[in-house]
Amino acid sequence: MDVFEALYTTRAMRRVRPDPVPSDVQASILDAAIRAPTGGNAQNWRFLLVDDAEVIARLAPLYKAGIDSLWVTLYADRVAWAAEDPDDPERQAFLRVQRSAQWAADNFTTYPLLLFGFAQHDPTGGSIYPALWSAQLAARAHGVGSTLTAVLLFADGEVKEILGVPADEGWNQAGCVLMGYPTGRWGVAERQPVQQVSYRNRWGEPLGVEVTDPLWP
Amino acid sequence: MDVFEALYTTRAMRRVRPDPVPSDVQASILDAAIRAPTGGNAQNWRFLLVDDAEVIARLAPLYKAGIDSLWVTLYADRVAWAAEDPDDPERQAFLRVQRSAQWAADNFTTYPLLLFGFAQHDPTGGSIYPALWSAQLAARAHGVGSTLTAVLLFADGEVKEILGVPADEGWNQAGCVLMGYPTGRWGVAERQPVQQVSYRNRWGEPLGVEVTDPLWP
Repeated sequence: MDVFEALYTTRAMRRVRPDPVPSDVQASILDAAIRAPTGGNAQNWRFLLVDDAEVIARLAPLYKAGIDSLWVTLYADRVAWAAEDPDDPERQAFLRVQRSAQWAADNFTTYPLLLFGFAQHDPTGGSIYPALWSAQLAARAHGVGSTLTAVLLFADGEVKEILGVPADEGWNQAGCVLMGYPTGRWGVAERQPVQQVSYRNRWGEPLGVEVTDPLWP
Repeated sequence: MDVFEALYTTRAMRRVRPDPVPSDVQASILDAAIRAPTGGNAQNWRFLLVDDAEVIARLAPLYKAGIDSLWVTLYADRVAWAAEDPDDPERQAFLRVQRSAQWAADNFTTYPLLLFGFAQHDPTGGSIYPALWSAQLAARAHGVGSTLTAVLLFADGEVKEILGVPADEGWNQAGCVLMGYPTGRWGVAERQPVQQVSYRNRWGEPLGVEVTDPLWP
């Protein structure tokens, strides 16, 4: 697969089938992930694959509680805003994300594979998110859908206990990638165009480059 | 370029030529970056390209001071450890990173292009690092080398003043990607193998997958 196809079509894919992800695909995903750079090349990371249905079942209620609380805390304003005019395309886009996240919460036990990333003494996450994103891109190349979630951080202590993460070594849970073969289709994600979210040389100054349609394909 | 070639060979490339990165390549890099996912698809990000030599010259001493301080603070232990036995391959690897970062500090004004990423109300960075890493992978596909640095965070206030970042809107400087055409060659980065940094189902439990040689090419 061309690198631009992977970069343009790896969007959050939460609705997946319960079919397992084969061992050689898992190996390829992880081996691609560890090629990513870390600050000072410290490789201060650990990856934890979870495919044991019992462990996933213990995590499921924590994820569900996290999603439930998102709608009434962090996303409360957006939920209210979306409800004001459900026919508005921008609000519909948010409602789609909300339904998709709710699907993940309601079907968490059917995910065949989770990938946790832990970074040691790295509060910014800059040292592990590139690797997790590489894992998602490699998964995409193998036809495996994924989404990165930070929702389990709401229950960080319980998650670490379930997974047996040592408490005294400075390992931060950076996030969890939910993986599986998607039920939907891959497509280029719609985004605010480059010139709306980019500046040149000084905040607020025009980029001087316009992109009206996605540059791939 | 195949996605795995990009994932395996996009390592930190700090030694670059001063030749400018053409506008259409910049557009491709940014358009690939904004396809990355954000939490809740909020796209709460801004990208700031800097190619004005005057602005880069104002940032250069801040970067140099940051690198200088790294060696005596965060990396002091590793510097001392590397000095103990400079013939040890693992310590040599660290010394190479150190020399390369020092090169960047000493030659900062020759970088043709910087890409700053700012995330709003996102302390974890999970919402912007995937996009910055996508930018680096897209750059790789165009033959442009890059490295992500958090060193300018040491001078966050001064950097934001130079770039005109509003102080009251919650924009965090996530990092800066230094870009340019590399003087060296692309290659697969050596890393601790997957099975040394990964577990299955519980911390410390063997992954059950062994990768002895990189799975690409």
